Amino acid sequence: MSSLPPGPISRSERAQRARQAFDHLPAALDALVLFDDQYIFYYSGFAFFPTERPVALLITREGERTLFVPRLEREHAQQTSECEHVVDYPEFPGRVHPVQLLADLLTRLSLHAGRIGVDHDGYLSVMGYDGPALSAQLPLASVVRVSRALDHQMALKSPAELSLIRESARWGAHAHRLLQDYTRVGGTETAAETRATGEATAAMTAALGPTYRGQNKWMSGAVALYRGQIGPNSALPHAMTTGAAFQPGDTLVTGAGAAVWGYISELERTMFVGEANAEQRRFFQHMINLQDIAFEALKPGHTCAQVDEAVRAYYDRENLWDHWRHHVGHSLGQRIHESPFLDLGDDRPLEPGMVLSVEPGLYVPGLGGFRHSDTILITEGGMEMLTNYPRDLSSLILPA
Amino acid sequence: MSSLPPGPISRSERAQRARQAFDHLPAALDALVLFDDQYIFYYSGFAFFPTERPVALLITREGERTLFVPRLEREHAQQTSECEHVVDYPEFPGRVHPVQLLADLLTRLSLHAGRIGVDHDGYLSVMGYDGPALSAQLPLASVVRVSRALDHQMALKSPAELSLIRESARWGAHAHRLLQDYTRVGGTETAAETRATGEATAAMTAALGPTYRGQNKWMSGAVALYRGQIGPNSALPHAMTTGAAFQPGDTLVTGAGAAVWGYISELERTMFVGEANAEQRRFFQHMINLQDIAFEALKPGHTCAQVDEAVRAYYDRENLWDHWRHHVGHSLGQRIHESPFLDLGDDRPLEPGMVLSVEPGLYVPGLGGFRHSDTILITEGGMEMLTNYPRDLSSLILPA
Repeated sequence: MSSLPPGPISRSERAQRARQAFDHLPAALDALVLFDDQYIFYYSGFAFFPTERPVALLITREGERTLFVPRLEREHAQQTSECEHVVDYPEFPGRVHPVQLLADLLTRLSLHAGRIGVDHDGYLSVMGYDGPALSAQLPLASVVRVSRALDHQMALKSPAELSLIRESARWGAHAHRLLQDYTRVGGTETAAETRATGEATAAMTAALGPTYRGQNKWMSGAVALYRGQIGPNSALPHAMTTGAAFQPGDTLVTGAGAAVWGYISELERTMFVGEANAEQRRFFQHMINLQDIAFEALKPGHTCAQVDEAVRAYYDRENLWDHWRHHVGHSLGQRIHESPFLDLGDDRPLEPGMVLSVEPGLYVPGLGGFRHSDTILITEGGMEMLTNYPRDLSSLILPA
Repeated sequence: MSSLPPGPISRSERAQRARQAFDHLPAALDALVLFDDQYIFYYSGFAFFPTERPVALLITREGERTLFVPRLEREHAQQTSECEHVVDYPEFPGRVHPVQLLADLLTRLSLHAGRIGVDHDGYLSVMGYDGPALSAQLPLASVVRVSRALDHQMALKSPAELSLIRESARWGAHAHRLLQDYTRVGGTETAAETRATGEATAAMTAALGPTYRGQNKWMSGAVALYRGQIGPNSALPHAMTTGAAFQPGDTLVTGAGAAVWGYISELERTMFVGEANAEQRRFFQHMINLQDIAFEALKPGHTCAQVDEAVRAYYDRENLWDHWRHHVGHSLGQRIHESPFLDLGDDRPLEPGMVLSVEPGLYVPGLGGFRHSDTILITEGGMEMLTNYPRDLSSLILPA
């Protein structure tokens, strides 16, 4: 057994992804043009801060990659991306729109009348970007959206990806342990989170060495948070931080993970400040039962929908629908949420190598939220838990 | 003069924004449907974590707002948004796609054949979302993109918005001062950033009181960072963090700001570890000259392009094009970058109330990056500096 910390995804693995992307597509295409920074990182290793300036990755049928970037990213792209070519344009908006210049590049590569797969038909941004669809600039081309097919490739994790996700899960559990230790009556959410996250990040950085990079858009370092899910506010599945102070009787819902070379994991626990009362115990036990049902159903051959349906049957039997708020879970790895989803509307089959969160929840206004989330791997025979943290009630009672 | 810290944007101001949005549109429309979380917060006060589950804000011609959310956000939306109505759908992907359910809602409101302005024609997400265009679900409607027009409304800041941006600038400067104090030879980027950001955030949180919320997507608390722009790496305008240690002779480029009730500011400085050498002094002075030229050109009646052109003339005169990487600046406020842009391709006129960054830069491979960024307000007579931090070389030399 090696004790070396895992390093980044290799250049050859990313190059192979680019070549194999075409095998996942439903139809034969001549090229891919991807605008989403997460696809770009996945296929090229270029981690960057997306803004109103379009960035695009072009992949030809042969797996040759060209990164199209604004001038300000040229050296950054040359130094850190693994693309065979980097092409830059001056600026956005510029005298000529960057999407026009991208279409010109495709024309020079004789792809102007090609069959082009895209994640989105044009660049997206929430930073004041405005521009035309790619298809409008390439009237002779056939532009088709293929993100669902690419997501299937991303969902099947390689051994290297799994080792990064496992490393993330270890540090997420460490951060969570510190969060649990530092959560005390009268202390605040912000203080406990800041201390646990700071210390866990320092420990992880020291252990993973000076070359370590997080490279994740949603997490940096090792984090453990409440995100506002404290006391009655924990009944909001996606609450926002309020800086609340902990009080005896509070139901708490946590979230923890760590960024390791682009990959993350997800660990969430329901905890109580002081002994849980009868209502808290009842909902906690239902939540454990729901998660156990999901674990049983997670195996190759089952569809995502079947897992959600198995869990939903318990809500039916136990008359818990007033407390249902969301489906059972989602894929994850590089993105904090990926597809497929453990949802009754998602008919995709589970396959070995998929990594998913398992987090059916119950939400009780006035009392709180009840949700554990674990990250699991679909194996040949069923599933394997990638997160490792106590799930039982007695381990999750904090001193009042 | 009041010394009370500023509070959130009032309900009446957000309601007025929703009514007045239609005045900014180029054509008469019956309704707006907005998917971007930043527009949704701007018009409704609903701050949330966008995922693969679509959220949409519908605004009728009369300014009546309906928030369309997944079931898991119902209570959160009811408690924190200022919309007149909240409508929820079960889940994504669900048995019926949420965009179909949104189209059904529009049909019930007799808008199925209406003229509908959108920010994007359908929901966007980088988290495994997949779905149809809104126009595909509403074949009788006329769906037009209006984000450029809405951005014009967002660009004209109200007195309440300006007071939040000013408060942000004060705390950004405080965080920056701490970053400067804590940057020492042998120390690391991460350690200096963490300490400055932690202490500044604690001071701001104490000063702004328990009701304070950041509510910003890009910043939380008061932050000061290097983002990897240390030593030769500072020559990459959008470098990424590497955890570098400071060394004598390093050129440094910083970034600081603070999140105050949804609003931010931008302060960046070029600093040197130890006395600057002749080359560093030369590029520093050119950068100061470039920023001064931009300040002179920033006044109502000038277009954004004219500011960029005035600055570009200096690159011409001084033969600095090898070191040019980007235009002069961008609007900001709620988003970290907003439109219009100080770019030769942006012909929009400057108007009183606009808030912009001013940050022409010079980048010298092997030596470093040279960029100050200040946040300014366009006034009736010219501009006003909103950031307040020394710009001169001697103030920005750190002990070696």
